[in-house]
Amino acid sequence: SVNPDLASERQTASFCVEKLTALLDGGTEQTRIRRAVVEAIQSDPVFSTENQYFQTQNERYEAAVRKAVHLQKKMHEMGWTENGPEHKYIYRALSGDVAFLLHRVFMRSISVLGSDKQIAKWIPLATHLRLIGSYAQTELGHGTYLQGLETTAVFDIATQEFILNTPKISAMKWWPGDMGRSATHTVVFAQLYIHGKCYGIHPFIVQIRSLQDHSLCPGITAGDIGPKMNFEAIDNGYLMLKNVRVPRENMLSKFCEVRPDGTYVRQGSQKINYFTMTTVRISLISDEVLTPLMKACTIAIRYSVVRRQSKLKPGEQEAKILDYQTQQEKLLPQLAAAYAFHFINDYLQELFDRGYREIQRKNFDMLPELHALSSGFKAVITHHCTAAVEICLRACGGHGYSLLSGLPSLYTKILASCIYEGENTILLLQTARFLIKCFMAASAGQPVPPSVTYLAAVKPGKCPAKNKLDFLSPDIYTEAYQHVAVRLISSTAAKLQDLVQSGAKKYDAWNQCTVQLVQAAKAHCHYITVKNFAETVEKLETKAGIQRIMKHLCDLFALHGIFSNTGAFLHDGYISAAQMDMVTASYLDLLAVIRKDAVPLVDAFDFTDKSLNSALGSYDGQVYQRLYEWAQKSPTNKMSPAYEKYLKPLLHNTLSKL
Amino acid sequence: SVNPDLASERQTASFCVEKLTALLDGGTEQTRIRRAVVEAIQSDPVFSTENQYFQTQNERYEAAVRKAVHLQKKMHEMGWTENGPEHKYIYRALSGDVAFLLHRVFMRSISVLGSDKQIAKWIPLATHLRLIGSYAQTELGHGTYLQGLETTAVFDIATQEFILNTPKISAMKWWPGDMGRSATHTVVFAQLYIHGKCYGIHPFIVQIRSLQDHSLCPGITAGDIGPKMNFEAIDNGYLMLKNVRVPRENMLSKFCEVRPDGTYVRQGSQKINYFTMTTVRISLISDEVLTPLMKACTIAIRYSVVRRQSKLKPGEQEAKILDYQTQQEKLLPQLAAAYAFHFINDYLQELFDRGYREIQRKNFDMLPELHALSSGFKAVITHHCTAAVEICLRACGGHGYSLLSGLPSLYTKILASCIYEGENTILLLQTARFLIKCFMAASAGQPVPPSVTYLAAVKPGKCPAKNKLDFLSPDIYTEAYQHVAVRLISSTAAKLQDLVQSGAKKYDAWNQCTVQLVQAAKAHCHYITVKNFAETVEKLETKAGIQRIMKHLCDLFALHGIFSNTGAFLHDGYISAAQMDMVTASYLDLLAVIRKDAVPLVDAFDFTDKSLNSALGSYDGQVYQRLYEWAQKSPTNKMSPAYEKYLKPLLHNTLSKL
Repeated sequence: SVNPDLASERQTASFCVEKLTALLDGGTEQTRIRRAVVEAIQSDPVFSTENQYFQTQNERYEAAVRKAVHLQKKMHEMGWTENGPEHKYIYRALSGDVAFLLHRVFMRSISVLGSDKQIAKWIPLATHLRLIGSYAQTELGHGTYLQGLETTAVFDIATQEFILNTPKISAMKWWPGDMGRSATHTVVFAQLYIHGKCYGIHPFIVQIRSLQDHSLCPGITAGDIGPKMNFEAIDNGYLMLKNVRVPRENMLSKFCEVRPDGTYVRQGSQKINYFTMTTVRISLISDEVLTPLMKACTIAIRYSVVRRQSKLKPGEQEAKILDYQTQQEKLLPQLAAAYAFHFINDYLQELFDRGYREIQRKNFDMLPELHALSSGFKAVITHHCTAAVEICLRACGGHGYSLLSGLPSLYTKILASCIYEGENTILLLQTARFLIKCFMAASAGQPVPPSVTYLAAVKPGKCPAKNKLDFLSPDIYTEAYQHVAVRLISSTAAKLQDLVQSGAKKYDAWNQCTVQLVQAAKAHCHYITVKNFAETVEKLETKAGIQRIMKHLCDLFALHGIFSNTGAFLHDGYISAAQMDMVTASYLDLLAVIRKDAVPLVDAFDFTDKSLNSALGSYDGQVYQRLYEWAQKSPTNKMSPAYEKYLKPLLHNTLSKL
Repeated sequence: SVNPDLASERQTASFCVEKLTALLDGGTEQTRIRRAVVEAIQSDPVFSTENQYFQTQNERYEAAVRKAVHLQKKMHEMGWTENGPEHKYIYRALSGDVAFLLHRVFMRSISVLGSDKQIAKWIPLATHLRLIGSYAQTELGHGTYLQGLETTAVFDIATQEFILNTPKISAMKWWPGDMGRSATHTVVFAQLYIHGKCYGIHPFIVQIRSLQDHSLCPGITAGDIGPKMNFEAIDNGYLMLKNVRVPRENMLSKFCEVRPDGTYVRQGSQKINYFTMTTVRISLISDEVLTPLMKACTIAIRYSVVRRQSKLKPGEQEAKILDYQTQQEKLLPQLAAAYAFHFINDYLQELFDRGYREIQRKNFDMLPELHALSSGFKAVITHHCTAAVEICLRACGGHGYSLLSGLPSLYTKILASCIYEGENTILLLQTARFLIKCFMAASAGQPVPPSVTYLAAVKPGKCPAKNKLDFLSPDIYTEAYQHVAVRLISSTAAKLQDLVQSGAKKYDAWNQCTVQLVQAAKAHCHYITVKNFAETVEKLETKAGIQRIMKHLCDLFALHGIFSNTGAFLHDGYISAAQMDMVTASYLDLLAVIRKDAVPLVDAFDFTDKSLNSALGSYDGQVYQRLYEWAQKSPTNKMSPAYEKYLKPLLHNTLSKL
């Protein structure tokens, strides 16, 4: 039976939840397929995550391997294929707790970087898990700066082999998933040396464990890097190489080859390869970043209409905590952000699909823009969503702090997305470099890529809003965001120029502007997100109920951004103090409006109870019952040896004294 | 041997580290005592925390109990007493991983709330751990709002007993520490009923486990609430009571008594008791909030001069990451905040000591101010420091995400401080209520407490700064903070009045202003922190070297606050756009200045390697070596059954195909 406090929230929905779900999925057929996958996975006991919060790192790893092996069978049974429509839902349904994710990266790197012969040899074995692959790039001393990797691969003409070495401790491979305990093979990135000359980083297939008994191969030292903030299921590993020899054929050679005589040959274009790296940043947004935020919103908002605490009106029943303005102000902007980023993700996916087609036609014009967008949005979305999940966690008070709420795991996992696949600050500076370049070009009247044409059309002037309702006009707030982005980019460009003109070296000037460059890159991404949300809402004209609520969310997302960052808009007087008070008023009004549909808006994300794995977020809202039942199963409710060892001697003779 | 990149940082210190340590400790004698305690604790293998990151919740609990029992012996051996000068350092040296912390609260509540007879009976038993106590206040359904607690205690005249019950699931006690597995007794807070009339919440001593065999007493259901985000060592518990009878003497009766005939008598003043609750919020700041932040700063800053990544200048060696402006901008403001909050904590401690003396002289005048300050500062400091620890963690990239860095544990633990002892938003609203009241009083010409007299002296005008150096004048920035606090408090007071005058109910008006009231309360605390830091620096005139660097940190703290919150200062034009650009310039300049002393400034916190328990933060900076050695000890480096069960069948026949 559904908790009546939650049930009542659903009765008054202003829109059809099922229609919104279909919109989010991209059509009713997609919804059907997704639900079928979720149902198949979640009804299979091997894939259960029920005990996850009670398990040790070792138990999590073992379960993840079991699931990965079972998944192969399951896919075969269900007729799911790598290219089928079900595929993108499988890993989401598994909530990531499955091994051999890096095995997939191993396969992809061979497919992309390997010659046809290499592909023919390795891919069939990998596909059937006849070996387990990993991807060894990051080292103890080097993450972001790939050129600095220190592992070496020296070509030995005499034996036609590469000799791989870890010259010092900072060169040890560190972090590769699936490598700590599972992998038999890995792709090692190393500095290639031929005749004493360094040719830079290249990928080599290296066997690290015996296929016979899984013992480490000669010259290999490898193991697990130990406990992390999350990802207990993954055996992130370390690897040291001591004179490990691999045949010449093991250097992945689609783009570069070492001939038997030691001649180094570069062939084809690597651009498609760089593009692949870029797309990874976009592809992670959906499952690794948006899904966790949507789950956190679902949990926190359902809990906030079931939890009653203190009185809003004297003499009445205690109030649902979502009726407090402060609670609305915590949660509803995060809900709006989940929608905003869902739509910008759609936009980016489409853009990247188009980019991919262009590049296959050997047109590389879009590459710089796509690189800048993928870097900036990866950073902005992961940062924003991580902060949002933390807000959801804290908004649930003590119960949010229990692992059984599901929120701590969501937080500790999404946090990693700010670091992996490019550290966020570094990425934002790459976006900033592109923006500065485009700004200079635009100022000089040269053409610039579509996403930055706005830099060429700088309009002076002030925000024309006359009352608080004007701030519910997308034109008004989109222009304000655009204005701020232009101002931050142009003023930082000017500062850079000033510094250089007053004699600073270019790299010094750059470093002295980086704090502001980061702000400028964020403002650019924020502007595009708001603009895209507004345009998405406009296109929903055939779905009046949904358009209305999406418009509210779009307004909230935009006004929350202004409210939380007033200085950027007030700085040059584009928005006046009086107008800022209107923004605040409109923003606070919107909270009360969206609060009414908060539960239907999270219901539309359509998570099952098993997906959420949360005592606070279940569809029926029976929070206290669930916490109690679940806690009783904790291994901490078994008798502890601490009693016999330490407590009994203290307590045993007290009886006589009481 | 110390990593040369770290050693070189120490050679150029602009001040004497040892003198700064003494200043932080409150004198060289305090430093000596602290070090002696730390040495005694850390050299004792029973107190080792070495394996902490590898242990399960059950193992952590057992270790915590072992330590708590051993601590008794240790204190006796060392001659340390509850009232001795060593005492305050003991728990800090143990880093909190010790059981029976709630036993101490059990004892304090009996001392404060119990009659002389009750104290004489229970305290000696508790002191010698002849029983283990807990403190059962929070329920599944009630935390913040104590009046809403649902547990009942009905007085039965016939038997002279109270009958305690958990009438429904939301009334179950939930969270009390030491209760899940250890406690034999607890203080239960319950609604007292006599002859069917409710007299509100009262405390009752209830035995929950047998002293003979530790089995649960009749009518008691209790256990552990399961895994949490941290605090694995603590057995937070649940408790249900079914017709549990305790004698009349078990109601703590210093202030309220039930006579044998059922007469309810209130005696003495409870004010001192409320004051005790208030002081808890202040007393937790040092060990639970500041120490973790100082540790996080130490770890992140030492790591940032050892980690080299990418090139700042072409052709040169890779740069220390602390030489990047963006890294300075992440870490140095957190360092400044650690000092700012250390000094405000000194200020609050002194204020509360004075308050305590006044209250003992039956002068309760200071109570409202102390309550407002303790609420506001608890919220502001816990919030700020939690965010700061997270920044430190992220600033260490991938290695910060490893538990071996020490940062994840610091973060997941400090986060709880935002929730316990009063949820932060609720606390800020209590401060705001006091501020609004004082503002109204001040506007009407009535006297107000010392910390808010500034509300009476509102000066119109603008910031007089003419160039960026002017913003290094404490008068300039302190006035700016004061101006913002006054503006936010007065404008919210005006909004409240407007709403009420236009017909809103008072409670509705209040709720509609809460987002802004929270901002006003934060601004007030921020202002006092800046003012206190500036005044502290001024008093350091006899210590020139230290005064100079503290002045820089004070400036940085103040300007970072303006830089991160420009809108508040720009809103009414108190600071103009041109002046804000000066703030930014001065702020960024300061980063480069303080960067030079960053390592000495964290060295002054004087943590031992064992206190930090971090592969990144050790005094010698041998980061990579330590990560590698430590990881090898992880239980994840033992053979997993997953190989035999799942991998071997897959891999075994691959050999023939390669």
